[in-house]
Amino acid sequence: MTVVRNIDRAEQGSIAKLQTFGVATVHEAQGRRGLLAPYLRPIYAGARIAGSAVTVSVPPADNWMIHVAVEQCREGDVLVVAPTSSSDAGYFGELLASSLHARGVLGLIIDAGVRDVRDLTAMKFPVWSKCVSAQGTVKETLGSVNVPVVCAGASIHPGDVIVADDDGVCVVARVEAMQVSKLCAEREAKEAKVRERLKAGELGLDIYGMRDKLAAKGLKYRDKE
Amino acid sequence: MTVVRNIDRAEQGSIAKLQTFGVATVHEAQGRRGLLAPYLRPIYAGARIAGSAVTVSVPPADNWMIHVAVEQCREGDVLVVAPTSSSDAGYFGELLASSLHARGVLGLIIDAGVRDVRDLTAMKFPVWSKCVSAQGTVKETLGSVNVPVVCAGASIHPGDVIVADDDGVCVVARVEAMQVSKLCAEREAKEAKVRERLKAGELGLDIYGMRDKLAAKGLKYRDKE
Amino acid sequence: MTVVRNIDRAEQGSIAKLQTFGVATVHEAQGRRGLLAPYLRPIYAGARIAGSAVTVSVPPADNWMIHVAVEQCREGDVLVVAPTSSSDAGYFGELLASSLHARGVLGLIIDAGVRDVRDLTAMKFPVWSKCVSAQGTVKETLGSVNVPVVCAGASIHPGDVIVADDDGVCVVARVEAMQVSKLCAEREAKEAKVRERLKAGELGLDIYGMRDKLAAKGLKYRDKE
Amino acid sequence: MTVVRNIDRAEQGSIAKLQTFGVATVHEAQGRRGLLAPYLRPIYAGARIAGSAVTVSVPPADNWMIHVAVEQCREGDVLVVAPTSSSDAGYFGELLASSLHARGVLGLIIDAGVRDVRDLTAMKFPVWSKCVSAQGTVKETLGSVNVPVVCAGASIHPGDVIVADDDGVCVVARVEAMQVSKLCAEREAKEAKVRERLKAGELGLDIYGMRDKLAAKGLKYRDKE
Amino acid sequence: MTVVRNIDRAEQGSIAKLQTFGVATVHEAQGRRGLLAPYLRPIYAGARIAGSAVTVSVPPADNWMIHVAVEQCREGDVLVVAPTSSSDAGYFGELLASSLHARGVLGLIIDAGVRDVRDLTAMKFPVWSKCVSAQGTVKETLGSVNVPVVCAGASIHPGDVIVADDDGVCVVARVEAMQVSKLCAEREAKEAKVRERLKAGELGLDIYGMRDKLAAKGLKYRDKE
Amino acid sequence: MTVVRNIDRAEQGSIAKLQTFGVATVHEAQGRRGLLAPYLRPIYAGARIAGSAVTVSVPPADNWMIHVAVEQCREGDVLVVAPTSSSDAGYFGELLASSLHARGVLGLIIDAGVRDVRDLTAMKFPVWSKCVSAQGTVKETLGSVNVPVVCAGASIHPGDVIVADDDGVCVVARVEAMQVSKLCAEREAKEAKVRERLKAGELGLDIYGMRDKLAAKGLKYRDKE
Repeated sequence: MTVVRNIDRAEQGSIAKLQTFGVATVHEAQGRRGLLAPYLRPIYAGARIAGSAVTVSVPPADNWMIHVAVEQCREGDVLVVAPTSSSDAGYFGELLASSLHARGVLGLIIDAGVRDVRDLTAMKFPVWSKCVSAQGTVKETLGSVNVPVVCAGASIHPGDVIVADDDGVCVVARVEAMQVSKLCAEREAKEAKVRERLKAGELGLDIYGMRDKLAAKGLKYRDKE
Repeated sequence: MTVVRNIDRAEQGSIAKLQTFGVATVHEAQGRRGLLAPYLRPIYAGARIAGSAVTVSVPPADNWMIHVAVEQCREGDVLVVAPTSSSDAGYFGELLASSLHARGVLGLIIDAGVRDVRDLTAMKFPVWSKCVSAQGTVKETLGSVNVPVVCAGASIHPGDVIVADDDGVCVVARVEAMQVSKLCAEREAKEAKVRERLKAGELGLDIYGMRDKLAAKGLKYRDKE
Repeated sequence: MTVVRNIDRAEQGSIAKLQTFGVATVHEAQGRRGLLAPYLRPIYAGARIAGSAVTVSVPPADNWMIHVAVEQCREGDVLVVAPTSSSDAGYFGELLASSLHARGVLGLIIDAGVRDVRDLTAMKFPVWSKCVSAQGTVKETLGSVNVPVVCAGASIHPGDVIVADDDGVCVVARVEAMQVSKLCAEREAKEAKVRERLKAGELGLDIYGMRDKLAAKGLKYRDKE
Repeated sequence: MTVVRNIDRAEQGSIAKLQTFGVATVHEAQGRRGLLAPYLRPIYAGARIAGSAVTVSVPPADNWMIHVAVEQCREGDVLVVAPTSSSDAGYFGELLASSLHARGVLGLIIDAGVRDVRDLTAMKFPVWSKCVSAQGTVKETLGSVNVPVVCAGASIHPGDVIVADDDGVCVVARVEAMQVSKLCAEREAKEAKVRERLKAGELGLDIYGMRDKLAAKGLKYRDKE
Repeated sequence: MTVVRNIDRAEQGSIAKLQTFGVATVHEAQGRRGLLAPYLRPIYAGARIAGSAVTVSVPPADNWMIHVAVEQCREGDVLVVAPTSSSDAGYFGELLASSLHARGVLGLIIDAGVRDVRDLTAMKFPVWSKCVSAQGTVKETLGSVNVPVVCAGASIHPGDVIVADDDGVCVVARVEAMQVSKLCAEREAKEAKVRERLKAGELGLDIYGMRDKLAAKGLKYRDKE
Repeated sequence: MTVVRNIDRAEQGSIAKLQTFGVATVHEAQGRRGLLAPYLRPIYAGARIAGSAVTVSVPPADNWMIHVAVEQCREGDVLVVAPTSSSDAGYFGELLASSLHARGVLGLIIDAGVRDVRDLTAMKFPVWSKCVSAQGTVKETLGSVNVPVVCAGASIHPGDVIVADDDGVCVVARVEAMQVSKLCAEREAKEAKVRERLKAGELGLDIYGMRDKLAAKGLKYRDKE
């Protein structure tokens, strides 16, 4: 079991841009990749973050390594916690949040449970978790910090960019962050034009030129008998 | 694969009444029928709608037919989307919502995922869905519009009335809308009287005359030993 | 099938203290016991209650015994409803809530569905339930009131103290209420000191003296290659 | 609540043919429609049936109407049981199976639980169910027999043909049974030829002529670096 | 954390009778109580056991206490393992089974995972579990042996009788074992007569005299239009 | 979207050894890593395989890329199929199995559905899948072959060794295959000795020397009151 220090992080400008685009746009812009499973939900609505992943591989119902991971976090990071087998225990609460908050960490992604959600909401420390659970954990077994993990079905490497908002959580590979942020900008520009036309009452069928392709596939229209 | 145009809709007065009664009352008034599975949840609290169903049968993770369905919607409709096999992809976001909104559509019922929930909430475009998911979809395979569908375990025909609120979603057959709205009014009148007596401290046991029936079934009372 | 009257309740002072500590602290203070399964969720955020359990064992999709149980409730109680087999029906709505509210009951814990959640929220009558469902129930089959039940995986006896907040629901044995409230106070005092140090930037690794134990277990640190 | 007698059934020759083709072929041949949700599983491997649906709409955890439905069954029928809200109770066991067996009924499809599976297996009375559960049911509330139902997500009308095997359960509309059985035969003939070529080592890529279409979509091949 | 030695067990004659009746009959005979949740499934078909519960409360993903519990088991016992929070780890495999087998233990009930199922099947050591999982566990945290537990939703005390077969698992309170076995015998005698009449083609509607009650509730019969 | 040809595979001797040890031993020997989620289950009992992973990333409910992947498979390989979003469609049946069988492929691991399970069982072509489902798929959208995938929660690279048996599925990194097979042999040798002692009635408590550590942690023994 290992703790890796001094991981590489993406350039801050790209991270900031990814935050403004949000999960759906980032996911689409990078080719519909990187989405974590939709059972991860925010504990309160409205939070939007993007930051560098500090990853933690933890045993089921044992949060010892989260204490170890705190030391490896710095301002702008997002903690990503993945149990080695399924757990709905409450690994994380307001004491750990206070500690991360003091270090400038932006939020937590955890494929398990979280507690003290009233306090976390009051502190505006956002969490995306599998469930809310007060179930206590132990501090007995080692895990690893800053190793590759699978969290909610997505492969995440330390230093990858985590984008999270009300739609869920998406990961962008560290080395692709700049490229993806550019693709996001292009996508948004394109969508802005479509949005105006849709609001004005034009149909997607016409804007996207779908009618011929639909007819070619064999779509038939008929009136109600 | 077919698109049916010019479906029949229920009379607007009945729809408006059903909206005021809400899901629980409508479900009870029509004999405890028509409820969609409770895993369909609103993306934000407080929305209450009733409208005519425009139904869409879609392939898993393919939202092409929703674009086709938009054209068949008119003011006061509710779009009902049912995949042909289980999917948690994000079929619907703010662009499609803008388009539906421009046509006066009241909301979306979808047995799959939805995304851009922050934007949809800001627009006040209500959605009842199986999950929130940013997972992108393709536009490759045909489906049908305005055919009977099974959505979240309930059979829905085009033009049926959809009632949805914080309790979930209920369907009323088009031809029964007026009759059900009358039964709702009767139920509400009856409940209003019971409510006052309960608030005044009377017991349901007495108001509903349950004591004799309970005794006849064999219910025993005893003090704690 | 039996209704037990005149159950013993915990002393009110202890109950009041448990309410202030909340679910996570109570659960930890009593040795990580007593938590109900995390699938029980509040219908609205922010409610915090503690009260004496009036338990109801109900048949699936039959809410008759809840009407019977209302009479056994008094001010400061919490109704705890457990079906004998799995059900997601909507056993409880605003009429029953009005009745309980008139008697000073603090809230409902139910391992099944609840409806009229908009009204319940407006009334500030909190409910922790497995789901929201408008599905109507019948009144045909007896159950029991104030017998031991298993609710959401936890064994609950009548008169036990129920503590519930945004983190979920915890049960404290009636005779242990005073002792547990003392342990909670000790825990909170201890955590208050830790909290200040964490906010000041100290690490849990140092505050809790974990570094030696981690090293002894074999944890290795290394820099990114 | 109603019992409909003397329902129409499909012609026996078509039913017999559908039985030989099995679920996957029937489902494909009718345009990928009619499959019940895959959580319905056979209680033992190897059974293959096709017969006319006698449908039963039952309350949760109440099997009274199954007794009513038995009388409406005749040789070659398949009983289809759908609760009005979710239930995992054990509605059906060896006594009911003995009664159906005596009438020549071929099997049971139930979106709920079944028990006595050891006896049912010994009797060779096949069941496709949501779960195995010994949970007893009551006989208190009416339902309906031979009305349209939604069972495991599929809409089923009385007299429709039910095809079930180790792959699950599929429904064929009564009036389409003959046409679907013809389409199945065509599909099987076509697949038989493909099967021989595949067994001989030819690739589907070549047999189906997929290479050009894949290239046109942009698929790239490259060697491992 | 405590290990209780020398627990009381039910009288062996009653246990032997309960084994012959099986889960469904025992569950019904004791008033439809005592069934464990149906997600507990046997790892192979055909096993039928009844024995005295030795209970183990274990931490999530930690099987240390099972080793402790083995020593408390004697011939004719059934080991019952309940994690304090949800786990799907593989707590138990062929080594532990060999140890229990050597002591005459009849089988294992576990609300978690089990592994080495091929070996356990070959040994004819039956297990009813939540899942099959090879996930390894640790030996770090204490639990308790022979304390009351909630296992798969049922409350089980040490020395209670566990009955398990292909239908699932049922618990009978130790002091009720003799009485329940008598009720089972009565039930079976009654069912034997009904079975013969059903096999001969009589209807349950007539045998149980249901027709009048159904009519009184309002059931209507009509022919297909 | 890319197909990678000529991937590296592990040395055949190591693969053959891993096959003999089975999933539980391999998982433990490599430090409790590499297990796929336990919801993947074999379609029939008794199969035991180990082979080199040919990975396929597929769109939901679209099996086109499996046809592409077949060409990349050679004798001794195991096909690993992971949808990009959750799907329970039936991607794979006996035609594809015939094709793989002709090429010497050992089996299929798929985080989705499979059909024709009767035929696959008769052919002895083993599959570990999320579900059995006849739901048909389309051939419209590209994916990739021999790229890293996450399958059932585990990260798998092309050429990694897949070990599967009745306990589930485990992955061993290609470059670690030899080392892990040695560790397995050591583990088995050690377990063989323990097994004999356990069968002879010795307790794990004594064999593993657990009594002192348990006492040190505070475990108490007491007799039943």
